[in-house]
This record gives sequence, C-alpha cells and structure tokens, in this order.
Amino acid sequence: MNAFTPTELPDVQASPDRRGQPIQRVGVRGVTHPVTLLTEQGPCPTVAEVEMYVALPAEQKGTHMSRFVALLQDVRHPLDTVGVSALMSDMLTLLEADGGYLSIAAPVFLTKQAPVSGIPSLMDYRMALRAEHVSGRTTVTLSITAPVTSLCPCSKTISRYGAHNQRSHITIAATLADGVRMLPDDLIRIAENAASCELWGLLKRADEKFVTERAYENPKFVEDLVRDVAARLADDPRVRRYEVSSENFESIHNHSAYAWMDGAGAAA
Amino acid sequence: MNAFTPTELPDVQASPDRRGQPIQRVGVRGVTHPVTLLTEQGPCPTVAEVEMYVALPAEQKGTHMSRFVALLQDVRHPLDTVGVSALMSDMLTLLEADGGYLSIAAPVFLTKQAPVSGIPSLMDYRMALRAEHVSGRTTVTLSITAPVTSLCPCSKTISRYGAHNQRSHITIAATLADGVRMLPDDLIRIAENAASCELWGLLKRADEKFVTERAYENPKFVEDLVRDVAARLADDPRVRRYEVSSENFESIHNHSAYAWMDGAGAAA
Amino acid sequence: MNAFTPTELPDVQASPDRRGQPIQRVGVRGVTHPVTLLTEQGPCPTVAEVEMYVALPAEQKGTHMSRFVALLQDVRHPLDTVGVSALMSDMLTLLEADGGYLSIAAPVFLTKQAPVSGIPSLMDYRMALRAEHVSGRTTVTLSITAPVTSLCPCSKTISRYGAHNQRSHITIAATLADGVRMLPDDLIRIAENAASCELWGLLKRADEKFVTERAYENPKFVEDLVRDVAARLADDPRVRRYEVSSENFESIHNHSAYAWMDGAGAAA
Amino acid sequence: MNAFTPTELPDVQASPDRRGQPIQRVGVRGVTHPVTLLTEQGPCPTVAEVEMYVALPAEQKGTHMSRFVALLQDVRHPLDTVGVSALMSDMLTLLEADGGYLSIAAPVFLTKQAPVSGIPSLMDYRMALRAEHVSGRTTVTLSITAPVTSLCPCSKTISRYGAHNQRSHITIAATLADGVRMLPDDLIRIAENAASCELWGLLKRADEKFVTERAYENPKFVEDLVRDVAARLADDPRVRRYEVSSENFESIHNHSAYAWMDGAGAAA
Repeated sequence: MNAFTPTELPDVQASPDRRGQPIQRVGVRGVTHPVTLLTEQGPCPTVAEVEMYVALPAEQKGTHMSRFVALLQDVRHPLDTVGVSALMSDMLTLLEADGGYLSIAAPVFLTKQAPVSGIPSLMDYRMALRAEHVSGRTTVTLSITAPVTSLCPCSKTISRYGAHNQRSHITIAATLADGVRMLPDDLIRIAENAASCELWGLLKRADEKFVTERAYENPKFVEDLVRDVAARLADDPRVRRYEVSSENFESIHNHSAYAWMDGAGAAA
Repeated sequence: MNAFTPTELPDVQASPDRRGQPIQRVGVRGVTHPVTLLTEQGPCPTVAEVEMYVALPAEQKGTHMSRFVALLQDVRHPLDTVGVSALMSDMLTLLEADGGYLSIAAPVFLTKQAPVSGIPSLMDYRMALRAEHVSGRTTVTLSITAPVTSLCPCSKTISRYGAHNQRSHITIAATLADGVRMLPDDLIRIAENAASCELWGLLKRADEKFVTERAYENPKFVEDLVRDVAARLADDPRVRRYEVSSENFESIHNHSAYAWMDGAGAAA
Repeated sequence: MNAFTPTELPDVQASPDRRGQPIQRVGVRGVTHPVTLLTEQGPCPTVAEVEMYVALPAEQKGTHMSRFVALLQDVRHPLDTVGVSALMSDMLTLLEADGGYLSIAAPVFLTKQAPVSGIPSLMDYRMALRAEHVSGRTTVTLSITAPVTSLCPCSKTISRYGAHNQRSHITIAATLADGVRMLPDDLIRIAENAASCELWGLLKRADEKFVTERAYENPKFVEDLVRDVAARLADDPRVRRYEVSSENFESIHNHSAYAWMDGAGAAA
Repeated sequence: MNAFTPTELPDVQASPDRRGQPIQRVGVRGVTHPVTLLTEQGPCPTVAEVEMYVALPAEQKGTHMSRFVALLQDVRHPLDTVGVSALMSDMLTLLEADGGYLSIAAPVFLTKQAPVSGIPSLMDYRMALRAEHVSGRTTVTLSITAPVTSLCPCSKTISRYGAHNQRSHITIAATLADGVRMLPDDLIRIAENAASCELWGLLKRADEKFVTERAYENPKFVEDLVRDVAARLADDPRVRRYEVSSENFESIHNHSAYAWMDGAGAAA
C-alpha cells in the first residue's frame, strides 16, 4: 500500500533507465480533438485524429504524457504547414526533447460550384499536417486524399457502349522545402485535374449529364492518375519529395486497383 | 446516343413505377458534413456522418437525391433534439414525402476539470440525433456513447492485490416525449455516474492517483453498468423508451464483455 | 488483501442482485474465431466475428462469461441455419438461461466462372447466421451482403454516352420459418440477379467487355435494386420476414445512395 | 461504338506510354482471400487481406491486373516466410516485372493453456507476411500484433491500492536475413514476455486471480514494452532490421499511449 500526499507523489517516469535504449517516438495516439485548419477559402473548423511523439533518451524511463494533451489544448490559431512546424518546436521545448513527430489528420470542406448549374455545395476531403524533427531539422509534409471518378480506358475501348467507372481515392503526400506555406487546395486541384472527373456534393440533372460525359471523354487507368499527379509534383518548386497513390474501388470487382509512386520535387 | 439540352432533360426518377412496392427509406448515407451541435456548454462545431431517407410511394420510380444534400447545406443553427424534429419536417416537405428517417452522428467535446488538480481539458464523446417520422408522428432519439473505466468486482475479490480494469463504452439511446429538448450532457452524466470511474483528457499525477483509487473502490460488472443506467432512465419523465449497452474492452481477453437492456421511461 | 486458495474462490457473479432488473442480453462480443460455414459448394473455412448473449434474471448479479467461449471452442461441424439453432439451444442449457441471442458473421467464398472466358475464381461475400430465443421460441435469420455493380438509369438517359456506375452492397436479412435450412447461395443469387451486373474475382478482356455492356443494358436505381430483391423474398415460402438494403457508393459523389425495405415473406 | 470480337480485343494496357515515368508499385489491393498460414502448431486456415504490386517500366501504359488474382488463386501450400519469397518470384515472372511488393495480412489462432486451470482455448493474433523485391533482391518481413495487458507503474506506485491497466497491442515487424524460415509464434512469445501479462481466450476464476496478480506484480510503461522487445530482436541472428511499437488503450483516458522503435538485428 502506497500512502503519499499529492505533493510527495514520486515521478516514476523521470527515474533513470539502465537498459541503454533510446526510443525514437513515444507519446499519445488516437486523440480526437477539434482543430481549425487553414484552406484558401479560410479557416475550416473540423475534428482531427492526432498523434504526438517525442524521442526519449536512453537514460530516461518514461515521457510525460499529459504534456502532449496540454499543448494540444492550447492551440489557438488555424493550423497550416507553417503552424505545424511551430507546434513541433513548442512540443520539443515542453517535453525537453531533441526529436519528435506529430500528425494532425482531419476532413476539410471546400465549397464548389456544380459544373453546369453553378449551385454551390461542400465537398469533403481528408488532409493531414505532419512534422518530423530529426537531427536538428524539422520536415513538414502536407497530405490530402481527394475522392474522384476514374473511368477505365480498356473497358471503354473494348465495349460497344458504356465503360466501367468508380470512385477512386488519390492521395498525395508532399514533403515541403523549409518554411513553405502550402494550403491543401493546391494538392486537391492537382489530384482532381488528373482524374477522369472530379466529384461534387450536389449535382442537378444538367450537372450529372456533364460529369457522365466528361468522365467518358477522359478515361484513365490507375497508372495514368498517379503519373499525371507525379508530373506536376516533380516540377513544383515548393516540393522536396512526394508520394502519390490512387486506389480505384473497381465497380466490376470486389477489390481495388492501386498504384503508388514516389519521387523528388523541384526543391529536392 | 441521347442528345438533350439541359432544360429538356427527362426526370427519370419521377417516372411511374408499376411494381406496386412502397419503399420505407431511400436517400443518402455516409455524408460527411460539418455541423454544430448544442451542449450545456454551448454550441459545439463538429463533423457529422449523416443519413437522410424518406418513404417512397409505390407508384414513384425514384427519389430526388440532390434535395437531401441541398437541405443539409442549408442548416444554419446549432442542432438539438428540437431542431432535428424541425429538420425532419423540412425534409418531408422538400421531398414531398409522408415518412422519413434522419441521423446525425458526431463527436462532441466537453470541458472537464481534472478531479484533484482542477486542470481543464476536453473530453470527446460520440452523440447522435435521430428522428423518425411514421404514421404522422415524429419520434426523436438522443444517443450518446461515453467512454469510461470499468473495474471487475470478481477480479478484485479473488485477487490478493490489483484488479483488472479497462476502457468501456456505455451507449444510451433515449427516445423522448414529443417536443422535449434534452442535451447530451444529461445522458453523459448518467453514464459516467454508473461507471467505476469517468475519464478525463488530461490528468496530472495527483489526478491519476485519484482515478486509480476511485475505480478500485467502485468495482462494476458490465451488468452493473447497464442496470444502474437503466434505473435512472426508467425514472426520467422526458424519456419514452431507452436502450442502454456497455461494451467492456477486457484487459485480460482479446474480446469484449457486453450487456444490453431496453425499457420504458417515465414518459411511456 | 484477499487470500483464497483456488478451490475457495467466491463466485461473485452468482451472488444475488437486489435491484430487480432483468437484463435482455449479456455475454461476449468481438470474439474473432475460426468457423466453417456451409454453402452449396460445400464447407467453407473462414474467420468469424462472434456475439453470444443470454438473458439474465433480475435476481442474478452476473453471467459466466467463460462458458460462452468454451461453447464456441466446442463447435465442430460446419454451421448453417439449422446448426445455429442447435447452438442456441446448447448455449441456453450451458448458461441456464431462458433467452438469448447469437451472431456469427464472416466472409464466405464461392467459385464462379467468368461470364465469357469461363475462368474460375473466388468471389467473397459477407454472411451472418443469427439466432434469437425469446418466449420459448428460437428465430433464425440468414444474412448476406453481395457486392454488385449498379448503373444509373438517369445518367444513361440524359447523357450522350456513358453512364455513371459503381460498386453497391446489397444486404438481405431473411428471418426463416422454423427448421428451414437455407444456404447463403440462394440469397446471393437473388441479390446478384437484381443488380445491373454481378461481380467476379477475375475477368479477362472478353469478360470485361461483357460486364461493361451488360451493366449498360441493365440500368438500375438503388430503388430498383431493393424492389426487385423484395419481390423475390415476398414470394419465398421459407421466409417469414425480410429486410433488404442497397448502398451504392456513387462514383460521382463522395457519399452513398441508399434504400431499405422490410416486409413479410410467404411463410409469414 | 466499338465492335470487336473477343479474339480481336485490343490490349490497351500493353500500349506504349510516352510520359517517361516508371511506377514503383501497381496492382491489386483489398483482396479478401482464404489462405493457410504456417505456425508452430501446424497450418492455420484463415482469411487474408492481400496486396500485390509490381514495378511498371516507363514505356508501358498499364499492368495486367487479372494476373495477380490468377496467381493468388493458385497458391496451394501453407505460406510462411520462405513461401512468400517464392510467391514474389512467381509474381515477377508472371507479370514480367523486375520489382514488386506483396502483403498477406490475416488473423492466426494459437491454442494456449490457461495458466492455472490448464484449460485450452484459442487466442487470435494478427500476422502479416510481406515481401519486397528491389534491385534484384527479395526482402521478407514477418509481422505480428499480440494483444496483451499493460499495467501502469506510475499508477501502482502512487496509489494506495489498484493500478490502471488495459489492453495493449504490441506490433513487431522483423525483416529477415535471406532464406530464413521464421514462424509467427517466436515473435508472439517475445511480445507476450515483454508485457505485464499475456491474454487467453478462456480463463476460469483461478486463472483470473493469476493474471490479475501477475499484471500487478509486473508493471510496465509503454516505453518498457518496446524496449524489452527491442532488446530481444537486436540479439536475434535471423533479424536484419526490426520495428516494434506498442499502443496502450489507456483505461483512464480516451486515447492511447504509444511508443515506437526501430533498429538493427544481429543479422544486419
């Protein structure tokens, strides 16, 4: 039985560890937290899934988990790629660490006009702000997943009419040059431009006719989707490294077609 | 090949159907949309997963899917159990339907003070506002899931020291008397009071000591959790029917212990 | 501190409860377990997610959780709608209960020949065997989810070429007349026949041409899918009640179109 | 309108591509397929989630998706770390590729005796066999996730009685020396030995007393779990590289504590 008054409670985490093993990442995961993320259309209030880790030296038994949550509670400004780098800096200071990783992943919402009727509606995308600090340098990665339509070129070519099409998820992760402010809208546009057709939240009949014909006129294999995105990222002066993937939820199978590429951007 | 100008596009959904089969629910599902939900602490901006369905008469071929999304985009006020009933009414009018179902499920965040240190932090809960309209009457159900700690009475009794404990999800669905405004906080308190201990987002060491001892002093089987919640709901004059369940993610097994009850509230 | 020898360990669950509240369902949930399920093509070894609950009388504090797992471990034969009824009976005996619910949900695999090339491949479907015992009677429900293609009649009609299509999940739950042996293949066929086209695991180019054209020739709204399934179930002499839904993962939106019906079968 | 007889259908995927971009990985994902995985207790029939990708040269427009599924259908033998390397070789030959990646992830089931009563029951673990072929060399990684109990040393030290504990997932990914046959049981034992206590599917009261006391006598931070696993892997002559993580689903919070390390094994 342990009887301490609160002020005497021992700090077990701070006690020494003799195994001689530093830990690259330790902290909290699966934290559901409200955040505001910055887009070209302004601040977007949303709900994030958060991971926050620091490096732990070999001689320390444990990290102080409550400090991660305290730091997250104090975030007041809309976050973007510059803000997440500042948050990393604050985390390293508060946790007295010389390395760390943090990830803030959430849906964001952009207003789009339907292509013919012009009616506005919200489209939801997934985005993530990630920062990693290793060897004295913070690297920021901006990720988005844009749901799009893909229409199969083979199916179109060999069939008398029609072509199978489906929802696809194009995911881009762009690791940025130091200090770059990039908003998710840029990457979303790159993904949508590479697709057979983009999606909207609300389409009237004239719009539905447009997107049906547009996709049919613009068939793309999963390979085409990632190649066309990669070509754009390779030329982007803000991008050091990129990864791009597309998962096509095939309408003629119960599995996905998938392609993945990584490469260097113009800032490499 | 079909060549229509936009104004001539035929309304295929409105064409007659001769199979003689009414459909109870047809509409949209899996809509990710930002909403504001009302709590005792004020409006809570969050991101919901939305379902919206109407009844379709036997003679009509299809519903008009874009109207559901248009209606959802127009929601301006924070939603509560009264607001969701009004939204049902608007949906039935807009879709020209005499029955329907809608569900808005989202995380909500409440500020709580840690039990000893008093440090404030956010706790996240799941809640859902559901409305069903059948035979001329709208029924509203408020649901919450509160994550709590449960500590096993058997393990405590038979062991020389310690007791297995774990995170549990207590879910309450309360079908309300007509016109009742009930906020999620009430149901969350009922769930947390029934647990071995409630959870907080941020605990300092003095708080951790408190919650550890509190859970040990207050062991509860999964059966106890649902019985104690049910007793409270059965006496609530705002509640017509309730369902309560608890899923305990057992720390000594790789499966859950689970209990479920339903019953009549005092408004039945 | 509690010091018992194993043979003296008190049975806390068996102690009396004075709150006067029976519990409808208590037991285990989220049990991942290997099972063999019966199909027309023979026994199919698979991995199930299992729920097993019994009714608990008001005067009993807790159920005996380990007995559910012991019973599940003893299942030796391939399960079907008759076997799951027998398993319910064994569960009620072992747990000394007069009511209960059990659910065994798993993927099953059927060999199908591609429509033109005839090449065989496996298709995966979800199925569930469910049994409920209330008021002295056991009711068995067989459920399947068949992934299919749906092609939009409106999109086809209004567009000069093409039509949006997508993967859809048709789910059927058929509550059976007492003692009926129904295999999942029957319900899967009903779902696939109602679709714009069924799916296969492996398609060569000639097959891809076939399924593309077949779907285009056979457009179906989400409403058509559920109506055509419901018509078949309403006439089935083995079926007492049915529920059917279809979720179409729209290729032109980031949400689903959905329809749901329930009704009486010919055995009602 | 395209009118081909099946034998004339053009091979669109094989047509040349002029963008000059090789793709690192293209193929199928999300394939649900029955497989048999080898454990020390013998072959374990289970259901896997499969990914199969090859590298695509810059000059080729698309890969042949149906060949991946055809290859998977032909797997006849129980798979282990040697078999997955052979499967990689077959995939590269069939797809005429010089690079590739494949992943077969599934639950496996091991029979364990309860610690006091000795009653046997199945425990389910997640495992994955992964192979990557780059620059003429195939690398095989064996992964497991073992669910265990962790009990907090801080909570035990500062509290008068009890200690918070919870289910944790320890995940190990071991990249092996060429040609090594390693079964999942080895990694599972390493994970379970590092925990406060291991889990069983079925425990009688005497067993529950044992595991409760065992965890209390053996408190571990999330940092301790990964350090103790890492120490074992660093010494293993079969292991070239390892990653180990632990996610503790804290019973006193609604988020997880998490730690992650990677390092070199004795075969590096």
